[in-house]
Amino acid sequence: MKTNLQNPLCGIIPPLVTPLKDNETLDIESLERLIEHLIQGGVNGLFILGTTGEEQSLSYRVRKQMIEETCRINQGRLPVLACITDTSIVESVKLSHTAADCGASGVVSAPPYYFATGQPELAEFYEELVPQLPLPIFLYNMPSHVKVSFDPQTVHRIAQNPQVVGFKDSSANGVYFQSVMYAMKDRPDFAMLVGPEEMTGQCVLMGGHGGINGGANLFPELYVAMYQAAKSHNIAEVLRLQQYIMQISCSIYKVGKHGSSYLKGLKCALSILGIINDDFVASPFNKFQAPEREKIRQALENLPIENGKLIL
Amino acid sequence: MKTNLQNPLCGIIPPLVTPLKDNETLDIESLERLIEHLIQGGVNGLFILGTTGEEQSLSYRVRKQMIEETCRINQGRLPVLACITDTSIVESVKLSHTAADCGASGVVSAPPYYFATGQPELAEFYEELVPQLPLPIFLYNMPSHVKVSFDPQTVHRIAQNPQVVGFKDSSANGVYFQSVMYAMKDRPDFAMLVGPEEMTGQCVLMGGHGGINGGANLFPELYVAMYQAAKSHNIAEVLRLQQYIMQISCSIYKVGKHGSSYLKGLKCALSILGIINDDFVASPFNKFQAPEREKIRQALENLPIENGKLIL
Amino acid sequence: MKTNLQNPLCGIIPPLVTPLKDNETLDIESLERLIEHLIQGGVNGLFILGTTGEEQSLSYRVRKQMIEETCRINQGRLPVLACITDTSIVESVKLSHTAADCGASGVVSAPPYYFATGQPELAEFYEELVPQLPLPIFLYNMPSHVKVSFDPQTVHRIAQNPQVVGFKDSSANGVYFQSVMYAMKDRPDFAMLVGPEEMTGQCVLMGGHGGINGGANLFPELYVAMYQAAKSHNIAEVLRLQQYIMQISCSIYKVGKHGSSYLKGLKCALSILGIINDDFVASPFNKFQAPEREKIRQALENLPIENGKLIL
Amino acid sequence: MKTNLQNPLCGIIPPLVTPLKDNETLDIESLERLIEHLIQGGVNGLFILGTTGEEQSLSYRVRKQMIEETCRINQGRLPVLACITDTSIVESVKLSHTAADCGASGVVSAPPYYFATGQPELAEFYEELVPQLPLPIFLYNMPSHVKVSFDPQTVHRIAQNPQVVGFKDSSANGVYFQSVMYAMKDRPDFAMLVGPEEMTGQCVLMGGHGGINGGANLFPELYVAMYQAAKSHNIAEVLRLQQYIMQISCSIYKVGKHGSSYLKGLKCALSILGIINDDFVASPFNKFQAPEREKIRQALENLPIENGKLIL
Repeated sequence: MKTNLQNPLCGIIPPLVTPLKDNETLDIESLERLIEHLIQGGVNGLFILGTTGEEQSLSYRVRKQMIEETCRINQGRLPVLACITDTSIVESVKLSHTAADCGASGVVSAPPYYFATGQPELAEFYEELVPQLPLPIFLYNMPSHVKVSFDPQTVHRIAQNPQVVGFKDSSANGVYFQSVMYAMKDRPDFAMLVGPEEMTGQCVLMGGHGGINGGANLFPELYVAMYQAAKSHNIAEVLRLQQYIMQISCSIYKVGKHGSSYLKGLKCALSILGIINDDFVASPFNKFQAPEREKIRQALENLPIENGKLIL
Repeated sequence: MKTNLQNPLCGIIPPLVTPLKDNETLDIESLERLIEHLIQGGVNGLFILGTTGEEQSLSYRVRKQMIEETCRINQGRLPVLACITDTSIVESVKLSHTAADCGASGVVSAPPYYFATGQPELAEFYEELVPQLPLPIFLYNMPSHVKVSFDPQTVHRIAQNPQVVGFKDSSANGVYFQSVMYAMKDRPDFAMLVGPEEMTGQCVLMGGHGGINGGANLFPELYVAMYQAAKSHNIAEVLRLQQYIMQISCSIYKVGKHGSSYLKGLKCALSILGIINDDFVASPFNKFQAPEREKIRQALENLPIENGKLIL
Repeated sequence: MKTNLQNPLCGIIPPLVTPLKDNETLDIESLERLIEHLIQGGVNGLFILGTTGEEQSLSYRVRKQMIEETCRINQGRLPVLACITDTSIVESVKLSHTAADCGASGVVSAPPYYFATGQPELAEFYEELVPQLPLPIFLYNMPSHVKVSFDPQTVHRIAQNPQVVGFKDSSANGVYFQSVMYAMKDRPDFAMLVGPEEMTGQCVLMGGHGGINGGANLFPELYVAMYQAAKSHNIAEVLRLQQYIMQISCSIYKVGKHGSSYLKGLKCALSILGIINDDFVASPFNKFQAPEREKIRQALENLPIENGKLIL
Repeated sequence: MKTNLQNPLCGIIPPLVTPLKDNETLDIESLERLIEHLIQGGVNGLFILGTTGEEQSLSYRVRKQMIEETCRINQGRLPVLACITDTSIVESVKLSHTAADCGASGVVSAPPYYFATGQPELAEFYEELVPQLPLPIFLYNMPSHVKVSFDPQTVHRIAQNPQVVGFKDSSANGVYFQSVMYAMKDRPDFAMLVGPEEMTGQCVLMGGHGGINGGANLFPELYVAMYQAAKSHNIAEVLRLQQYIMQISCSIYKVGKHGSSYLKGLKCALSILGIINDDFVASPFNKFQAPEREKIRQALENLPIENGKLIL
């Protein structure tokens, strides 16, 4: 299995939003602009079709297109990770072949999310899935959306297959992240990546390898700087940067009443900054209307932005 | 919009299991046998690709095939309802056209199940979806699997479109079912159907229209008899039949430790009774092994079965 | 163990609100009026210090006083059941002795509600508690408040002690209620009572013994009539009365945004009808303010009330 | 209001187990030994009657006695914080006066845990409670046990009263802890303390003030060393100590099947080490039996313990 992945994968790997014109039309121009913005921002990989990328809301045609276009635009500059999370193992495998054919470096998979599985069932599912994949795989823990959480021992069991090369945890549970780190302590090549950007600093300080942080779509430099500061144990800098990260988290992601605030706010801010043309959000959601958009604009004005970049 | 649906749809509409040879191979011979078994059992419709039908675990190719084959075998004898629940509105619409093209009578949809929606978002989703559908639609409440529940007022709002013709509730919440009934009290044409077979008797006694009951795959006569007894207010008979329904519920569905017990037990019992050839369960689940299968066999032996039928 | 309890206890046993002047002052005059109102309304018992009675919000002094005053006012006319739910087994036992000393007929207990117990722990807790009680006990299932639910087999295990004489289920789960009924089918003396009044009709039709329904504080006649209609299998009457029950449920209990709406709405309506003097709700809640009170008043005006009674 | 509390309170403040002979008998000799063990271990305060202290399982008599005896044994050497969490505001206030009379330095309160409150109700509860308390108060976030979580803005609102001097978070949610830190960023005197010991290192690195860590009952030196390492930004030492903390967490707290494993394992280990005489756990729990006790003994043998102390 050939791949250009680091061992383990480190740094900031943004979970790209999927720029859309409507439910069925990818906005390729915006995607090009977004990818150049991220590469210039110094990120270490591109993670597509995750929760932030609205994979589940997209048709399979658009999911496939998103993989193809990202790999085409990237031209091998960064590792591309494609999320293949699905309730159907057949569709997951199919998507993984698209990813391999397009030159992606790895795939990412959260547990099937309609039926809730017990831990042995979850392990057996991955023991069936992984050998069918043409690429290395990262497990993705996302209990708020998929209803089940990988037990640390289940991660350990599944990762006995060396094709399983890392773990993304979006549980926000700090005890849990440490427990998986501890269960995997004999696997220094196994990447431990954290989803919520509010925890990237602390997770890297504690030995984690990086973050798959949605805010890096907006301000890649900020999260890359946080990663570097934490990796080099510069606590003062970690604390300084954390203030910006929390300001973003507590303003841009908190407009709107429902769980969709994060996604709507992120796309809205990206469109205000001109990184994507339109903040269309796929069904079942709708983009913000004018009053919410105005609040996002004000939240951005409260940040020290010049020429679309945070002045750190 | 042409349909052969009753107004409202009444009676027992079994949620068919999907007979499989493996993850990607529909067992058509078993499907034929199952459908004839159900029609002979007196059921009032065929509901395919629901939770019991493992829709989410099947590839889109197999989902499509299941619709085609069911409609072919049925030959218009009963209304066919096809579940189109999906996280992608585009895929839902696509599946609904397959259903219409094959001659199905209606579609059924539970809320998108990856992202959790707020109530206004849920209403807007259906206000966008329903006009794109070529068939009448039943809403399907399944909070344990999709994480959100339709508020009674959301049902009322969505059902202002007359294309929305009924509701299936699998919440098992008796207050909730009554609350939706009350919210819809001015729509006598709106079908109120209950998922859990343990509640069919009481729901029909209280004015509900029928049940979409998994056990009817096994013993259609039992659930049809329960419906008739409840509809005709024959309480003694309701109570007598309820004992069989509870015996099945507390034995066949309770082997195994995880939430998958119901599905595995049902398919296992169907294969023991010879209604389907094999009890293969699609990933992420596996069928029962010998010890569990033996327990199911014993549970069946404790029922008064002759020639594959319950002697009521 | 001497008791005047029926075997099993049947009918409508209202869970009395606790009339208060402030957090620490029982309003005895209102309690007297409430109890006379209930007895005249034809109820079959008085259940005090349940969830509707705000047991947990009251000091132990007031809990004790509520038992004493209720028994004094009742003068043996009806069985009195006192809720002794507590996180401390010692305090539960203490309260049960107060109840016995005052002449109560039984006690009611929901599981300890700070720590969540596993099922064997739950069974062991009751196997330790019950022998220390001087009165028969009813188990009380209230998972939304105490986080754990009695498995039907746990009910069966605990009820092997004949001092355990009944079960109150406030889960609203119709499958669950049937499952406990089925587990206890060899104990015709074991009372199966339902909490949510929206389900009293159907539960009694299905063989349940009655309801512990909060609305019976307001309109005891309505719930008693529902019980009688269901018990005598008069379905038309059940359906007619159910409309009133649902109207109350969907109006009086639905003002306000939080889970406390039921309690605040019930006490507010009781005070508007003059049954209690003040609708003071103990901390952590506060009674409704003027706009919500006005909505309750309107909800009452939409009911056919004459001289404080529903004209059924 | 006189108190000897630091401003903010910093360091390791163990949540003491409550040594018991039976449900109603405090083991004072063990309590004396435990407190001397902790003071020698260098901890910064004594936190009694928390979750680890089984407050809710104890009678009020024993709660009161625990406060009295702890303050008597402590003789003013360390600040004592007494948990007054209760569902009844009257009982909370009463307990706070006991604490003040005995010389405790502060009280700690988690939200009422029977009824779930909305955020405005929660704020109003504390706005009513705090002025009645004779001591400074720490808010205690414990959503798994009390069902509600303080919104960061609710903490900010309640803490406008300067009598509210700190926050203990046992949610294990790293994003949440950062969000409360950010909401309170203008209050450098407000103590931010973390419950789960697996997170103490990272929380202190990120600017938190310390930990209320159950494991400190066993090995106070370990957690004090972790606090010091994190406070002095010695990451290598943090990572080294974290291995011991995780080893304890993944062995001693993981014997047994239910949520009670932590408590039973902790008391069992304390009794094996001779710090407390007996590991009696109050109802609704029971202490471990021989096989589990043997596993705890083995877990302790895998730690580098000499003369009852971890060799760090």
